[in-house]
Amino acid sequence: MSAPRPQAEGEAAPGPPRHSGELGSTQASHRLLAYSDALLSIIATVMILPVAHTKIHPDQKLGESVQQLLLTKIAVYLMTFLIVTVAWAAHVRLFQVIELIDDVLALLNLACMMLITFLPYTFSLMASFPGVPFGIFLFSTCAVVIGLIQAVIVAYGFYHPYLLNHQIQVSENQAFYKHHILQIILRGPVLCFLAAIFSFFFIPMSYVLLGLVIFLPHITRVIIWCKNKTVGPKEDEESHRLEAFTFYLNEPLSKERVEAFSDGVYAIVATLLILDICEDNVPDSKEVKDKFHDRLIEALSEYGPNFLAYFASFVTTGLLWFVHHSLFLYITKATRFMGLLNTFSLAFIGGLPLAYQLTSEFAEKSHNEIEAIQVSCVITFFASIFQFAIWITALFHERETLHPLARYGGKEHAFMFAKLALYPCVSLGAFFLTCLLSKFSTAIFHIMQIVVPFAFLALRILVRISLAIMKSMLSLSRRKNVVLDEEETCLSPAETLS
Amino acid sequence: MSAPRPQAEGEAAPGPPRHSGELGSTQASHRLLAYSDALLSIIATVMILPVAHTKIHPDQKLGESVQQLLLTKIAVYLMTFLIVTVAWAAHVRLFQVIELIDDVLALLNLACMMLITFLPYTFSLMASFPGVPFGIFLFSTCAVVIGLIQAVIVAYGFYHPYLLNHQIQVSENQAFYKHHILQIILRGPVLCFLAAIFSFFFIPMSYVLLGLVIFLPHITRVIIWCKNKTVGPKEDEESHRLEAFTFYLNEPLSKERVEAFSDGVYAIVATLLILDICEDNVPDSKEVKDKFHDRLIEALSEYGPNFLAYFASFVTTGLLWFVHHSLFLYITKATRFMGLLNTFSLAFIGGLPLAYQLTSEFAEKSHNEIEAIQVSCVITFFASIFQFAIWITALFHERETLHPLARYGGKEHAFMFAKLALYPCVSLGAFFLTCLLSKFSTAIFHIMQIVVPFAFLALRILVRISLAIMKSMLSLSRRKNVVLDEEETCLSPAETLS
Repeated sequence: MSAPRPQAEGEAAPGPPRHSGELGSTQASHRLLAYSDALLSIIATVMILPVAHTKIHPDQKLGESVQQLLLTKIAVYLMTFLIVTVAWAAHVRLFQVIELIDDVLALLNLACMMLITFLPYTFSLMASFPGVPFGIFLFSTCAVVIGLIQAVIVAYGFYHPYLLNHQIQVSENQAFYKHHILQIILRGPVLCFLAAIFSFFFIPMSYVLLGLVIFLPHITRVIIWCKNKTVGPKEDEESHRLEAFTFYLNEPLSKERVEAFSDGVYAIVATLLILDICEDNVPDSKEVKDKFHDRLIEALSEYGPNFLAYFASFVTTGLLWFVHHSLFLYITKATRFMGLLNTFSLAFIGGLPLAYQLTSEFAEKSHNEIEAIQVSCVITFFASIFQFAIWITALFHERETLHPLARYGGKEHAFMFAKLALYPCVSLGAFFLTCLLSKFSTAIFHIMQIVVPFAFLALRILVRISLAIMKSMLSLSRRKNVVLDEEETCLSPAETLS
Repeated sequence: MSAPRPQAEGEAAPGPPRHSGELGSTQASHRLLAYSDALLSIIATVMILPVAHTKIHPDQKLGESVQQLLLTKIAVYLMTFLIVTVAWAAHVRLFQVIELIDDVLALLNLACMMLITFLPYTFSLMASFPGVPFGIFLFSTCAVVIGLIQAVIVAYGFYHPYLLNHQIQVSENQAFYKHHILQIILRGPVLCFLAAIFSFFFIPMSYVLLGLVIFLPHITRVIIWCKNKTVGPKEDEESHRLEAFTFYLNEPLSKERVEAFSDGVYAIVATLLILDICEDNVPDSKEVKDKFHDRLIEALSEYGPNFLAYFASFVTTGLLWFVHHSLFLYITKATRFMGLLNTFSLAFIGGLPLAYQLTSEFAEKSHNEIEAIQVSCVITFFASIFQFAIWITALFHERETLHPLARYGGKEHAFMFAKLALYPCVSLGAFFLTCLLSKFSTAIFHIMQIVVPFAFLALRILVRISLAIMKSMLSLSRRKNVVLDEEETCLSPAETLS
């Protein structure tokens, strides 16, 4: 049977690559990847639930309980988030090499997904029982099987070369690529396999081995770098040819997949609180009858803070998504380093609903109020400052990574700058204001929440006005000397803003 | 400022439509829609959580408790699922008219999303307190505000015509379209507004009005149809010009959005059980120490059925996604009717994890075992048969809706048929087998779960073999009369399969 790509969008003609494998017809992979991204983004954020559902008694000091949380559950959340993101990055890398799929690859990928979704659980088992061999064994085994499936996917891809990336497909030394990629993919599983074995007689060694999995690429990079410095570059041209699987920070990362993964995380986080509300906050009809005499409003007013927290967290998450969306409209090429910054930003965003829940829970109790609000401000600040960092990174290589309009001197540059700077500035401002005016901290926080959406709506006008003011001020100060160059005024406000 | 579309994919040149609105630069809407789809798919499935978390005591009869569930929570789940899907369909329709967005539209859309995510909760309030005015009032108000925001979006779009669909943009009677679309969009909110008012003095009237919102389009369709039959078609040509907003069953529905929404639902449903597992099934370290003497395996074996249920539901959901994915690869144009069938399929898929949880919980208690397994089979059957119905619908208009390869006589037709028929056949078979051999029902069920993935892997080979067998049998029987035409053999097996 032939191997067509029945895809309507973009490629008008199906253009069947008639290399005709024995099994399966070839398909474009975009939907498989979208589904995988959706699964992975859900899984990445799942460990925030145990954090969010930890009950804090209102009479307990928040300071202590936050510290308790920080030490165990938040650490587990952040670690699993990073682990899933690493798995996601490996998946992206894999499907940058394999560009078309068939039924067998789709099913193999589903099997791989199933095990990746199990990773957070095995990790939290390992974290809860650091001294028990079985926890480590389970986690390592899971990682080994995931790596093996990925290796099978690569092997299958090279066995049916028409599925591969065009660059590799036309290349002459496919065997070298195959060897290179399999080596990188299997490095992790081998270490995990050793960790699984060591778990039964020498547990510390297992942890060292598992730690090695994360740091090995960086270590090898450093070693190669040192070698090149001392001996001089050697056979570097061969590994340079392949764009993926280099572990360089400027290795390209599929922009669409970064967007899809981020969308998933933002969507889950935005709805995290409504899930709780739908499940727990529908009042019992008997209780309403007995306690509130069928007055539903009164019964619901008990849950008031929960609704407030939901709307606040939805708005903040939504606006941060909006900033992310605006940013990636102008980014033309995403790199691995940007992906890393994006991961950090997303990890903090996962904590947002929790923070807002705290603020609204303690709003009236005033005991832990300021701490909760400050934690919210700090989380918002970090989530947004990492977005800002992506923008700065993009500006460093603006010729490759940014759309002309957003570069220095571009028409959208100042506006983009303002959009990205808004949340860091506001959250930092709110944080310091609550320190100074601790009495009015709730008021400050609520004003911030209400003002920010309108600030975004009117941002373009605000930027224009401030640009105009700056321009006139600049022209006033310089009028004596020179006639102003239009280009320069476009550039300078952005610099003064920072 | 100019209005560029900084989009890398597909449209190589940014091609800025320099109609330059006052506010906001124009952007392609695909990511906004992807994010909306993610939010909506999460929200659509959220009301399954109260169903899934209803505790059933092992000594209780499942028959009764399932009936209890069926009457309240499952009904609420199905209704909210349908309501969210209706909201989703309205959203799709809206953004088939508005093709480009700017910042203002993005923010308006986020506001709209926030209220839609609140709908399930207000609906479940209304369902729990059918006699309390406030519940109805809240739901109606929510619907009114959503409708108003959508109307504002449409008005904004027509105020900045470069954002609109090309068909409307070049049309001469834009005012007619604007009027027509606003009328349809505002019809719902007006009825809901009346329902909100009536809720305070005559509740039944409110329910009638809310019911009207759903059935009004169909009623008007019937009235128009009757009119056309008696008086003859009149000014039909004007409403026919606009493809969207017709409420005809063959009105086109954006295929990408159907895929994105379905992907979201499949992803959420597939991970529904792991969310529970991650939250509740990490054993307490103290308990493990005291009760199991630090033997983690024993402690975990208590949760064994949960893990089994997770893997089973992930595999089934994953494979149903795989079928859906294969189906939509060959569908070139989705219609509203297909969307409806897809919704039904997805609604049943939402129940899958719950069903699997039941089967594994009762597997050893044998009291409610058969019922649980049969419920699982029935849900799987309906989820897959609605997918099959999409395929049948597509075949009816195969020239417009199907890729040539999947049409009658196409090379992929028989294979596609087998893929779609596999799950309905297997689940139906398992259902009847458990009726006949009730003693072995668990064994049958587990065998089914293990066999199906492998059947999918080997399906192409199986289909080929059966095609070859049929071909040889047919040629044997016809040899006396005529030499066989190759084309015909390709066609016939699919018919005999059904």
